Amino acid sequence: MTGMSATSASPTTVRIGLLGFGNVGGALVDLIAERKDDIASLTGIDLQLKRVVVRDLAKPRPHDLGSAELTSDIAAVTQADDIDLVVELVGGVDAARGWVSAALSAGKPVVTGNKALLAAHGRELFDLAAANGTELLFEASVAGGIPLMRALQHSLRGEPIERVMGIVNGTTNFMLSQMTEDGADYADVLAEAQALGFAEADPTADVEGHDAQAKAAIIATVALGGSVTDADVPVEGISRVTAADIATAKRLGYVIKLLAVVERIGDQPPYEVAARVHPTMVPLDHPLAMVRGSFNAVFIEGGAVGELMLYGRGAGGAPTASAVLGDIIAAAGSLAHGGVRVVPGLTDAIIHPPESAMSAFYLDLSVDDQPGVLAEVAGVFGRHGVSIRSMEQADVGDEATLAFITHVASEADMASTLAELEALESVVRIGARYRVVPQ
Amino acid sequence: MTGMSATSASPTTVRIGLLGFGNVGGALVDLIAERKDDIASLTGIDLQLKRVVVRDLAKPRPHDLGSAELTSDIAAVTQADDIDLVVELVGGVDAARGWVSAALSAGKPVVTGNKALLAAHGRELFDLAAANGTELLFEASVAGGIPLMRALQHSLRGEPIERVMGIVNGTTNFMLSQMTEDGADYADVLAEAQALGFAEADPTADVEGHDAQAKAAIIATVALGGSVTDADVPVEGISRVTAADIATAKRLGYVIKLLAVVERIGDQPPYEVAARVHPTMVPLDHPLAMVRGSFNAVFIEGGAVGELMLYGRGAGGAPTASAVLGDIIAAAGSLAHGGVRVVPGLTDAIIHPPESAMSAFYLDLSVDDQPGVLAEVAGVFGRHGVSIRSMEQADVGDEATLAFITHVASEADMASTLAELEALESVVRIGARYRVVPQ
Repeated sequence: MTGMSATSASPTTVRIGLLGFGNVGGALVDLIAERKDDIASLTGIDLQLKRVVVRDLAKPRPHDLGSAELTSDIAAVTQADDIDLVVELVGGVDAARGWVSAALSAGKPVVTGNKALLAAHGRELFDLAAANGTELLFEASVAGGIPLMRALQHSLRGEPIERVMGIVNGTTNFMLSQMTEDGADYADVLAEAQALGFAEADPTADVEGHDAQAKAAIIATVALGGSVTDADVPVEGISRVTAADIATAKRLGYVIKLLAVVERIGDQPPYEVAARVHPTMVPLDHPLAMVRGSFNAVFIEGGAVGELMLYGRGAGGAPTASAVLGDIIAAAGSLAHGGVRVVPGLTDAIIHPPESAMSAFYLDLSVDDQPGVLAEVAGVFGRHGVSIRSMEQADVGDEATLAFITHVASEADMASTLAELEALESVVRIGARYRVVPQ
Repeated sequence: MTGMSATSASPTTVRIGLLGFGNVGGALVDLIAERKDDIASLTGIDLQLKRVVVRDLAKPRPHDLGSAELTSDIAAVTQADDIDLVVELVGGVDAARGWVSAALSAGKPVVTGNKALLAAHGRELFDLAAANGTELLFEASVAGGIPLMRALQHSLRGEPIERVMGIVNGTTNFMLSQMTEDGADYADVLAEAQALGFAEADPTADVEGHDAQAKAAIIATVALGGSVTDADVPVEGISRVTAADIATAKRLGYVIKLLAVVERIGDQPPYEVAARVHPTMVPLDHPLAMVRGSFNAVFIEGGAVGELMLYGRGAGGAPTASAVLGDIIAAAGSLAHGGVRVVPGLTDAIIHPPESAMSAFYLDLSVDDQPGVLAEVAGVFGRHGVSIRSMEQADVGDEATLAFITHVASEADMASTLAELEALESVVRIGARYRVVPQ
């Protein structure tokens, strides 16, 4: 950094090294070029893109790099004396871990959008940043352009956060929205999402919930203050959601969303943390229900602040670049004015046993349409301590479909209820099962 | 401040002086007591409430003050050597201006929720903070517990923000929601809001939009980077909104909301700023349409980030105290770790002429139900360059009601259209007129 000064309002130059020049990197290069002058006048910081690391130097790049150099030498960014701040937008875990570690060890603040890296090795990297008196910022890693990380880390730092529920994967929300609005089937909307570029050729990471799982781990870590990794987050994707399930949910006043759910368990420290990802029935009048298409939203419940929701674009080059730029300005501000916030290191969170997690449940069963069957089925719920809130019966030939919504119950009690129901002779088939956000 | 250290993780004590012990002040005292230990372990900062200034020392206070002293001496907070940080929760303009100025001049960071003060004298106070190397934080002044100010000042500092539309007054949103959901009349919902404590005995500040006006000025200043005062913001309240207007809006696919609208005008610097407050027809599928009851929400449109919305509790003791606490932790962090962000001073914004502001409009007219009248009326719109997007006619006896929605037009063109319509013999009455968020 050149021209550094603690109090002067004359521009301080901060020299940026960028790793990765794909969709988000390209949008970032354009955004910095467009906003450079305004940022200097608003903040007193002159952002100078100095060097961009790419794998293929020969590939044509439709972006104005100004005076920045292209290089394939990673150390020319992570280790160079003329780079003040490193932006990592390559992705992946193992190699990125090495680059980010090298930059932090050299005392350089790092801005990253790499959720997989943070969900796997966040604690180690935050500790490394603190040990080197520098910062690791990662707004872009969860919910793209939505300023969620900053809200949790700063505005809500003192807030007794009780629960966070997020629609944090745009691909699956697009798919579920199409299924809801057009009555379309899973396979058809997946093909449509792939054709539109919303879903990858191999859609596993999105549709099986692994992307949301990494984000849930990061949200849990930041919201509740103990390190949670992706391995701590049970996950269930949307590939078994059917058009019929969505129609039933709608009739009952719900919409099905893939939610990352993070909860603080217990009334006093040491708190436990429960985090999970699953398709969920959300009441139609809940703010999360109106989040359509590829939008993301995160609903926060706090003891003081009450209900809070942040909504916006969770992916895409420009929205994600906007989040990266916000972090760059923050890190550049710390360089220019001093005052890196070195906070106590993370400890590992105490993970709440997944079988003790509490939800309301939706469950439908096909049963023999005979007297006494409902009483028998209801008796099973009751024996396992699962209380029924509502039941709806539909007759189809000599079978009946029973659709239950329960009061809040534990995963374990619901599992043992299911096991006993499955063994009943009068139960022909166990149908769909969803967690439910209570109305 | 005692035990200050730039890098140590051992707790730094920050001693707080609080001006005002009403609804928000009381909630803040409780919240600090509840969260003190967690905040220390998360941030390394020990928040110590040292002194609370009240007018009436004898009044009973149902809050645990711990070791804090009650005093009626304002200087014992704003000027005292043993106070590191001042929180102003009294409100009002002239006296508060003096107290905040005194604290800032003494180099103490100030956290305030005082929107009227900032809307009137923000520029002077921000300059004073910068001149004294300290901070003035004000998250609680707009939209209560919603972390809007931090998002605009930090996450979106580099974002090319184009427009901000906010439901920033809970009282009027509660009233409009009741009118929408129950078909109730303005006078009835006002009485209900007063009975529930959502509206004051003199409701003028809320229903005539003055509260929202001050907030619009603050949002404009923070979002667009030039000083805007409440005097720069044309305002129209909700007292002329009728149950019939709301029913018509609903039939056309809209809901009526009181919006604070802030826009950046122009494609390159120097930009102009347009800010205004008025009841607005919002399409039912717009995210702002689902904001019901006393909730607040702010919808942000940026060139890179796209659409963003922040939703939550805009008032109330605990949510507002949560916002104040977030600011306290931020300011305490700057004290503990150094690094107050001294940014270039505000300049006055260039205010866009109000008559040039652009909106779509709804307008209904009662006209003689005779051939040729529609052509005559449509001709008036056309002559003033106002393009009609839709028209709906309803016949009532020998009159007809024409309900128009226009494409985007200027306030001036709409005003001259109205003036000419008013003079037409075939126009019996000009009915409701609303700005419209285009679908």
